[in-house]
Amino acid sequence: MFAPVYLDHNASTPLDPRVREAMLPYLDARFGNASSRHEYGRQARAAIDQARQQVAAAVGAHSTEVVFTSGGSESNNLFLKGVAASAKPGLLVLGATEHPCVREPARQLARQGWSVETLAVDEAGRLDGAAFDAALQRRPRVVSLMWANNETGVINPIEALAARVRAAGAWFHSDAAQALGKLRVDFRASGAHALTVSGHKLGGPIGAGALILDKRLELAPLIAGGGQERGLRSGTENVAAIVGFGRAAELAVEAQQESAARLRDLRDYLESRLHAQGARIFGAGAERLPNTSFFAFEHIDGETLVGRLDRAGFAVASGSACSSADPRPSATLLAMGVAPEFARGAIRVSLGRSSTQEDVDGFARVLGETVMELKRLAALAA
Amino acid sequence: MFAPVYLDHNASTPLDPRVREAMLPYLDARFGNASSRHEYGRQARAAIDQARQQVAAAVGAHSTEVVFTSGGSESNNLFLKGVAASAKPGLLVLGATEHPCVREPARQLARQGWSVETLAVDEAGRLDGAAFDAALQRRPRVVSLMWANNETGVINPIEALAARVRAAGAWFHSDAAQALGKLRVDFRASGAHALTVSGHKLGGPIGAGALILDKRLELAPLIAGGGQERGLRSGTENVAAIVGFGRAAELAVEAQQESAARLRDLRDYLESRLHAQGARIFGAGAERLPNTSFFAFEHIDGETLVGRLDRAGFAVASGSACSSADPRPSATLLAMGVAPEFARGAIRVSLGRSSTQEDVDGFARVLGETVMELKRLAALAA
Repeated sequence: MFAPVYLDHNASTPLDPRVREAMLPYLDARFGNASSRHEYGRQARAAIDQARQQVAAAVGAHSTEVVFTSGGSESNNLFLKGVAASAKPGLLVLGATEHPCVREPARQLARQGWSVETLAVDEAGRLDGAAFDAALQRRPRVVSLMWANNETGVINPIEALAARVRAAGAWFHSDAAQALGKLRVDFRASGAHALTVSGHKLGGPIGAGALILDKRLELAPLIAGGGQERGLRSGTENVAAIVGFGRAAELAVEAQQESAARLRDLRDYLESRLHAQGARIFGAGAERLPNTSFFAFEHIDGETLVGRLDRAGFAVASGSACSSADPRPSATLLAMGVAPEFARGAIRVSLGRSSTQEDVDGFARVLGETVMELKRLAALAA
Repeated sequence: MFAPVYLDHNASTPLDPRVREAMLPYLDARFGNASSRHEYGRQARAAIDQARQQVAAAVGAHSTEVVFTSGGSESNNLFLKGVAASAKPGLLVLGATEHPCVREPARQLARQGWSVETLAVDEAGRLDGAAFDAALQRRPRVVSLMWANNETGVINPIEALAARVRAAGAWFHSDAAQALGKLRVDFRASGAHALTVSGHKLGGPIGAGALILDKRLELAPLIAGGGQERGLRSGTENVAAIVGFGRAAELAVEAQQESAARLRDLRDYLESRLHAQGARIFGAGAERLPNTSFFAFEHIDGETLVGRLDRAGFAVASGSACSSADPRPSATLLAMGVAPEFARGAIRVSLGRSSTQEDVDGFARVLGETVMELKRLAALAA
């Protein structure tokens, strides 16, 4: 079977074979509902308990601080709406480059009386320090700033931000879905009150994520009912996915340092080739995830380029996968002051465990040829 | 490996091997994010499209009316909170025996200014007709009445109820999680505006369900973000689980009539044995799901009985699995006027595809012996 080279690990990762192996028993003989009081139920409950320990260890939290959800989008919505439902409306501060699953619930809260302030970023995608300082003066109730951006890979200095937000008396949440497994993520050391993490971004299955939550926060559940997850997330637990997430988190954190070093070398090599081809790399001036490169070529449309690369056997993203049905250019790039026309050309390469030197060489070669051809076509048409 | 006889299919069902087979490619080579614009993304998108057709066909809806969620609890919360967020507070009417994932979001809405009226049921668990009539006089905005109860299996006459609710100008939702696959469920014919269905109750995986939704209803999303599922449910689609749900719905509906006839015979046989042993069967006077028997013995504690049956190799439920961590007796039985002491003795047997005459014979024999022994012990202690 034809298998294109997969260079889109920030959208989703292949399931690690060891994770698959851990999950399968829970799709087979161990199929019970974890709330059931019989052998099948106990097997499921024990498996969830173990996964909770694994996720807690991977993020430097206590297992009682892990609230399993169906994934990152649910975790972000649970945090924002859960806090909002337990507090009087106030000021919510977030970054301009947050994922839509932070920006959209914030818009919903704005309709319910919350003030929402969006912090600007500089041309490299870094948070505007003056804007952050000014926002903290206005005594926000909640601040949500992502650990690392899904498109550019730009990293926020979470410890420093959390310390400032805590000093200002607000709750601090960070979407760490793109950070866990790629960077060291330590909940306790970070100073955050809540973190969002997701299984399928780190070699685990789609369908399980978590909100890591300081127990002093009172949240109203987004999904209320049978009272699972300490009443914070009702619904029959997705045992197989939770088991997979636990194992994947464990494996990803074990391999993180080595993997980061290897992928950074590959990514830097790719970017040296991209520079030579005349690409502009977004966020290049900032600290970034080791695996991510987001770039564009002048006068080249991103969708066209992605389509040609796809036919040539390379799977990359144009803008964020989560909103690729949306023809508007990347909100992250617009926030960075990139012209809409240029932003429309953006391509994201995100490397992962399976990525090799050969993949990157092949990609760089085909990309160079394709860009040349598109430029020729444009010149002919002009 | 020791495998207890599984008699708890209303809590969760084993994965049908044909469903497992359909899912596995999406845990392996076809791991893409369905929003991605490359080969892996298109594979995932095509699989979701097919599953949407399968679910739509299984419930008599159009595929554009299927909103995939993580399961039944999310679907119920999405409907109730989604409607509430798009309308001014008004009257919400629900049944006294609804699942906690309807009752709890209703409680949350009550704190936001909604009036919530809970309709009484009779001693057989049937909706009180006079209470229903009276509630419709008060011009409710939303009515939610389950298709079939998870504990007793008692069935509501959905078509008749929906017609009355429609005539009263309200939106009608029904939680059909326990009905699909066990009864004929036809969204269009039912007259409901929205139905909740769930994959793991009918041979599919945990982690996928749907809200079947009349497109005239405007719902605010519970999980907002990337805009998946027509903006009604953001988050990376759980492709493998959705594929499994689609296939399971198809298979369950294909087999429904034959399966219902077979399980009804087995269940009726079981109940003839239960009667002979002196059990009282809850809801016996009402129309019920063919696979479900909910019963108790005077002066016998349900938890004790379930524990003994478990050790003897029979997996059954005491009360609803979703709240079995909760020591209070079944809310369904209390609503039916059963004394709390007696309700605490309740045991639920729910048969499924794998259930055999041998299973039921063995269970009835061990149950009879266990009840006799517990009665002897009680007599000695008295």
